Amino acid sequence: MNILIVYDVNTSTPEGRKRLRNVAKCCQNYGQRVQNSVFECQLEYHSYPMLKHTLEEIIDSGADTIRIYKLGKNYQQSTEQIGRVTSFDFDGSIIV
Amino acid sequence: MNILIVYDVNTSTPEGRKRLRNVAKCCQNYGQRVQNSVFECQLEYHSYPMLKHTLEEIIDSGADTIRIYKLGKNYQQSTEQIGRVTSFDFDGSIIV
Repeated sequence: MNILIVYDVNTSTPEGRKRLRNVAKCCQNYGQRVQNSVFECQLEYHSYPMLKHTLEEIIDSGADTIRIYKLGKNYQQSTEQIGRVTSFDFDGSIIV
Repeated sequence: MNILIVYDVNTSTPEGRKRLRNVAKCCQNYGQRVQNSVFECQLEYHSYPMLKHTLEEIIDSGADTIRIYKLGKNYQQSTEQIGRVTSFDFDGSIIV
């Protein structure tokens, strides 16, 4: 299955910044970062509950928010990019 | 058609912050903000080229990036939310 994970993590505290890194690390196991807080992931259906549970464990549900969209099999063909194409090293610093 | 617009605008300059506001204003005409830089939009197919053109005009293609995903008709049924549900006033200040 293909999914898109988008998230807003409150980084006003050191704990928040740690949660942000951990969310990215978790998503990184399943796919690739396409924007600062956006991952395109490809995984088996049976892996999805574990991914979701892990994300639920990482975030502060009172401060952070994650949305997960199911994407179609050939979503890349209909996805459009405007502007700068970004690639990321793992820590989130943007390589342009 | 249903689309998801996710964007990263470089806000290190006043011009960038203005571009960010204008991208949000543009997206606001077609749908609702679900995260800081994420809009779910619903529009007619014939309106899509104009939306794309407007976004291309607003951003600095060397500094900013927008991705547009096509979503299925019933995407809300398969979309999952983890953590805080956010609602926004237009200027982007988060109402929790």
